[in-house]
Parts: sequence; structure tokens; C-alpha cells
Amino acid sequence: MQDSAQSALATSTILPLDGAYDLGRAMADTAENIEQVLNSLLPELRPGEPPVVAAMRYATLAGGKRLRPFLVVSSARVFGVTGPGVLRTAAALEMVHCYSLIHDDLPAMDNDDLRRGRPTTHKAFDEATAILAGNALLTLALEILGNAVTHPESDVRISLVTGLARAAGVAGMIGGQAMDMAVHETPVMDLDGLIRLQQLKTGALFAFAGEAGAILGKAADDARRALISYAYDMGVAFQIADDLLDVRGEAKDIGKTPGKDAASGKVTFVSLLGEGEAEVRAHEFSDRAIRHLDAFGPEADALRAVARFAVERRK
Amino acid sequence: MQDSAQSALATSTILPLDGAYDLGRAMADTAENIEQVLNSLLPELRPGEPPVVAAMRYATLAGGKRLRPFLVVSSARVFGVTGPGVLRTAAALEMVHCYSLIHDDLPAMDNDDLRRGRPTTHKAFDEATAILAGNALLTLALEILGNAVTHPESDVRISLVTGLARAAGVAGMIGGQAMDMAVHETPVMDLDGLIRLQQLKTGALFAFAGEAGAILGKAADDARRALISYAYDMGVAFQIADDLLDVRGEAKDIGKTPGKDAASGKVTFVSLLGEGEAEVRAHEFSDRAIRHLDAFGPEADALRAVARFAVERRK
Repeated sequence: MQDSAQSALATSTILPLDGAYDLGRAMADTAENIEQVLNSLLPELRPGEPPVVAAMRYATLAGGKRLRPFLVVSSARVFGVTGPGVLRTAAALEMVHCYSLIHDDLPAMDNDDLRRGRPTTHKAFDEATAILAGNALLTLALEILGNAVTHPESDVRISLVTGLARAAGVAGMIGGQAMDMAVHETPVMDLDGLIRLQQLKTGALFAFAGEAGAILGKAADDARRALISYAYDMGVAFQIADDLLDVRGEAKDIGKTPGKDAASGKVTFVSLLGEGEAEVRAHEFSDRAIRHLDAFGPEADALRAVARFAVERRK
Repeated sequence: MQDSAQSALATSTILPLDGAYDLGRAMADTAENIEQVLNSLLPELRPGEPPVVAAMRYATLAGGKRLRPFLVVSSARVFGVTGPGVLRTAAALEMVHCYSLIHDDLPAMDNDDLRRGRPTTHKAFDEATAILAGNALLTLALEILGNAVTHPESDVRISLVTGLARAAGVAGMIGGQAMDMAVHETPVMDLDGLIRLQQLKTGALFAFAGEAGAILGKAADDARRALISYAYDMGVAFQIADDLLDVRGEAKDIGKTPGKDAASGKVTFVSLLGEGEAEVRAHEFSDRAIRHLDAFGPEADALRAVARFAVERRK
């Protein structure tokens, strides 16, 4: 698992971005650390037990870019904060992301059989196990944030718990998923609607990644707001780039069949704007994300590099 | 809604239990309070929004005994603690209970069309909405426990959050649901296995109800352990009585077709022990639950009355 997480970044075509900061190396290092922390936080497989634990591990220890954890780590580093508590927070956020993917893939939702070239969790196990594994990951993530090992001060832990719960709840990610399901039935959506959907469905967790760094760093309100705004704009840039990769990317890089979104009639930034205009907008959001960091110095270079990576990546 | 919650208890056949404590009145009062608190904590219905909020409200504001909230309220009262924070904690626990029912009823799980005489949530809405509504209730419950309105001290809130997350997680309720699904496939289970399954699937939330009262009451360790042990044993007594009602009860009282469990070939305390022995065991667990309260005085009478109610109720 660690090898695949590492190689995902090692083969990135945009590295190094500049002489000062090697994003590919930093993301690969974080991905490796997160894989280890996830492995230690997930319940152990024991013989004779129901398959829910195996399904939790299957869905979570599957490598990938670990972009959200990297945002947590990089946001905390803006305030000079590093260490196991940061990685636990990052891993908890990744668990919530993985739970959302398990449930999104269910037959009653997007009904996907494959994710990143592997059977989805309900295909590798069964639907009941997939539903329970998703529930268990959400529950475990919030328990981890509340645990004293994550931070010695209960005020900090409470801010993390309530921040993640809000981001993952009906005013955040779940609201976005519900809106997405409704759109499936009446696929009429303009650009503002799509941005709003994206900001709920995936933006809220990105925003929490920035917020978590600020909470762990005990940042002042304006710094906290700057990181949240950065993460929202970076998230939109990332999503537009995803839609562009869906029409331009190669299957071996993006881990799914190119053109799948277009073929399914899904409303995307590309279907609304066309490729050229979508690319312009992606760069606008990326630039805007970077401008939210103007008050910070080189300690925010990782976040600036991620915002560029979001739109320049090939996978 | 409040009327049905109230009438559920007002028509109970076992009231009053004795001259000193009117359990029926106390449970009806708590049920009414909880209905109001749930109503205020759940997101509001707004026109044009996806149906997930309506589904959350449908599944939660359906009346019922509100036994778990009553246990929270009664356990807190052992330590002289009352007020809005206790009711918020009780309501959060009820949300987790309702989320578990929504997901248990799904086609991939128990595939039930009716609950308490009404269409289950996935029948009244659709599967995707039911899955999301369950997820949203779990998320909201943990957010509520973390909110400063629930208790001024963050240490207390953290204990509530982590306590509920553990009870609802893979080492508690979800573990029990997973075991229950596995049993569906290989229905070979002895009494110890069934008690273990029940203690995970429903006992863990009962235990948290007792624990929550102890946390809110800042109880000493031995008092906290006593309430948890009480709640576990009371939960088993309650479940055995449920199995007895399934074979003895009348449809109008129990809100489902009598004999349903037996007809489905489900392993129950009655199928393992027979009616007579099951009744003996129910009373044993109820008595044992009450003995865990020996260190407390009349301030624990509500809990003693509930343990009797668990096995003497007719619905």
C-alpha cells in the first residue's frame, strides 16, 4: 500500500515545481505517513469476525494522493505545528473522505463497480457491509478527534470534532450529496449551481482541512478565515481540473475510463463551459486561492504549490 | 407528534407501579420534552431543498417510548443534574438510535417496509435519501454533544462525544449490526452468542445512556461503572421482553405483526429458551440491573422502575 501511495506522486509530471519546494516529495512523504497512521488507527483484522473491519481497511488503505491530509499537514505547518496529533487529524479527515466514497458508490447512489481500478467496497464485500463500513469510518474519525492523544487541550479537540461534524453534515458534504442525487433526476444546473454543489459536496471537507490546521495552530481569526477561503477556492480549481481530466486524461493515469462523466450526461464544468473556458476558470480559482495566502510568508509555500498542482496535474 | 409520544405511555397498562414514583407520567413528560428538543435541533424544512432534511425529521419525530433519552435523564438525575444540556444529550442519543433504525430497515439490511405501522424511511422517500438521512443524524448527534450549549466544560463534552462514538462504533452498535447480518447467513447461535450480539447491537447505546448521566453528573468511577452495568443488564431484560412480546403481543400494541421474528427464522431468546425460561431470564436480568443500583438511594428510583417496566410492559 505504501509503495502505491508513494509512486502515485513520484511519477507526477509536474515535479519539481520550482527550486525552493519539492511538492511531489512532500506529498509522497505525507501519503506514506498517513498510510501508517491509518493502519494503526483502524481496527485490526481478527479471524472469525464479521467482514466490516476488513471492508473499512479495504476502502481506506488503498493509497491515493491523500490530498486532504496533505492540506491539514501543510495548513498546520503555516503555524509551525507538526507531529502525531496533526497526522491523526489528517487521517481522521481521510477516513471521512473514504466513507463518503463508499456510500457514493452504492447501488442506491452512483452505482459504481470500480474505483481507482479496484472493485468498489460493496462489490468486494456486499452492500450491507459497505454501508456499515462507511458508518464505522465516520464514527471512528470523530472518536479519534476527541481522543486526548490527538491534542492535550480539550478545547482544541472539541473545535476539531464540531468542525469536522459540520463539514461532513447536512449543511456540508451530506447536503452536497443530497443535492447531487436530486440533480440526477433533473439535470438542469447552471454554473453558480454547480459551484455551490461542489463547495458543499467536496469543498466543505477541503475547507475543514484548512480550518483544522488553523485550529491546531491556534491561529487568529483572520488567518483561520484565510485558510478556509484558500481551501474552498482550491477545491473548485481541483474539481474543474478533474472534469478536464475526465475528457482529456488517459485511463492509465486517471484510473477510470475517460469520457465517463460526459457519456453519463452528468453536468460538469466542462459540459457547462467548454474545455477552453473551464481551463481559464480553473486557473482563476487557483490564483484566487493563492491570493488568500498573501498575509503568509514562505511557511505557506506548500499550500501555494498545492493550488498550482490542483490545475496542472495530469492525473 | 407530541400527542402520540404522550399517549404511548399514558395508555401503558402497568401504571402506576407504586405509590412513590409514577413512571408512566415521568416517561410521558420526558418523551414530550425530547420531542420538542429534537424538533428544535433538527434542521428546518425549507422549500426547494433536497428531501434529506424531511427524511431526518420523518425518521426522528415519530413519537415512541423514548426509552434511551429517559435513561439519560434518569441517570443524570441520580447526581442531581437536570436541564437543557441533559435533554440535548438525550436527544443526540435518540438521533443515533433513529439513524440505526433507518439503516437497519434498508433493503440491503433487514429489508423492512414498515416500522411502527408507518412506511420505513426508504419507502417514504428513497434508498439514497434514507442512507444520507441516517448519516446526517449520526453526524448531527456528535456535533450537538460537542456544542458549548450542551455543557460549559469542554472536558465533559469530549467525554460525551467519545463515549457515544465508541458506543455507536465498530466495537459497539455497528459491530452488533455486522454480527447480526452475518447471523442471517449462518443462523447458528447459542445463548451466550445472542447475549453478546444484543449487548453490542442495542446494549452499547443503553450503556452510553447510563454513562452519559454519570458524565454529566461528574460521578465517581464506581458510580459510573454501576450505571453502565445497570444499563447493560436492563438492555438484555428489555430485549428478552421484546422477543416475548413478538410471540405474545397484539399487533395494535406492538406496532407490527406478532410472530414476525419466529416466521423469519430469526434466532431470539424465545426460540433458544422457550417462553417460560425466557421470562425467568428476563426477570433475572432486570433484578440484576436493579442490584447494580444498591449504592444509590431514592434518587435512582426512576432507573429501578424502568428495569421493572422493561419486563412487565405489554408493548
